[in-house]
Amino acid sequence: MSTTAPLSPTARTTVRRGANRARDDRRDLYDVLSAAAICQLGVVVGGHPLVIPTAFGYDLDGPDDGGSLYVHGSVASRSIAESPGNDICVSMTVLDGLVLARSAFHHSMNYRSAVVIGRGRLVDEACEKTRALDLIVDHAVPGRAATLRSHTRKELAATSVIALPLTEASVKVRSGDPVDEDVDVENGGWSGVLPLRLVAQAPVTAADAGGEEIPPEVQARMRSSYAFPSVVDGSRGL
Amino acid sequence: MSTTAPLSPTARTTVRRGANRARDDRRDLYDVLSAAAICQLGVVVGGHPLVIPTAFGYDLDGPDDGGSLYVHGSVASRSIAESPGNDICVSMTVLDGLVLARSAFHHSMNYRSAVVIGRGRLVDEACEKTRALDLIVDHAVPGRAATLRSHTRKELAATSVIALPLTEASVKVRSGDPVDEDVDVENGGWSGVLPLRLVAQAPVTAADAGGEEIPPEVQARMRSSYAFPSVVDGSRGL
Repeated sequence: MSTTAPLSPTARTTVRRGANRARDDRRDLYDVLSAAAICQLGVVVGGHPLVIPTAFGYDLDGPDDGGSLYVHGSVASRSIAESPGNDICVSMTVLDGLVLARSAFHHSMNYRSAVVIGRGRLVDEACEKTRALDLIVDHAVPGRAATLRSHTRKELAATSVIALPLTEASVKVRSGDPVDEDVDVENGGWSGVLPLRLVAQAPVTAADAGGEEIPPEVQARMRSSYAFPSVVDGSRGL
Repeated sequence: MSTTAPLSPTARTTVRRGANRARDDRRDLYDVLSAAAICQLGVVVGGHPLVIPTAFGYDLDGPDDGGSLYVHGSVASRSIAESPGNDICVSMTVLDGLVLARSAFHHSMNYRSAVVIGRGRLVDEACEKTRALDLIVDHAVPGRAATLRSHTRKELAATSVIALPLTEASVKVRSGDPVDEDVDVENGGWSGVLPLRLVAQAPVTAADAGGEEIPPEVQARMRSSYAFPSVVDGSRGL
């Protein structure tokens, strides 16, 4: 699937509300995938929805149409066990600010969000499974997977990996000033945005790793603006 | 419902995986409610799950058993329209850090998360609806609702508010160091946590509000550790 393929080829991922915030370029999806630290996995269990936060990784060249989104969990996890062969929904949200208008009605948030819906696929091929687990580690800290020992057979057996095609997705983005009613602007009063950033702080070395150097990929992660802006990149705030 | 009432009175909100991270004190739920900036609303639409990020507010003394969680949206919103009378799931996650172990398997995140499941209720009583909308504004910026003009009849008619009882919930918390295999500790290498914080930056006044003073509740919000830690409270990082 090329980057010019439609982002929302079906009705269920077509944005209906706030269509002015909808994006239909796959590159906007890639931006959200890159910037979101975690995702929320939605499954239907016993007729009701269950939404669970979890780490993720993705491979735009993965075997699924449009690329592959990967989540993982214990083989005994309810949300993971319900995913293969069923429609699942993965939602990612990057919160960029509180939009503080002159009326409650026009209060909002600045955000970049993606919703991906599709049939979950259990990843059982060994190479893809290992690669997916490494991508999940590298999404948190780029380059870290290569510094770690190999997965053991026992670890791989205890972990399920689910792939979700990036075929059907919707992306919404809000940025900029509040949009107030003309009459409220005329009446005066402050209006604006309180920017929010998820920032990394100095690493805390584990008690059982005293004296070890903080590895370069962790230092880079702390300094990098990849995945989420860091305090070091000038987004320090006050 | 007292704070000593069980948090997970049913099987569907009983934590099965990572039970060592489960909390069963309602005060832990209140901590997550207080600290989370947004929630993810999960509904079942056309047989598949749909997970949408949205603002929320809550009233521990609300009319629902255990207190009331409120979300709102356009009356035309799909996720909001599907909520009344149906089981919905609201998930809130506060991400506190990346847990960087010596093996991929033990990589994790430090977080505080809550999952609330229950029957959505359309809030149509005028006082409760207005109060819920004010609580949603005040969850973003405490004290702001009282500074805004009243909701118009048209705004109220265009907005649906959904209440979810805080009766059935699960809370999971992970904090502290990675937990590595003994053999990996013996083999050495760094291990630790990269703390993450959602921080507020200096407010950006809207273009149409030039010259207006930043109101005290917005300044307080920027400085406050309520809802999420701010850079001003010493959690500045580097």
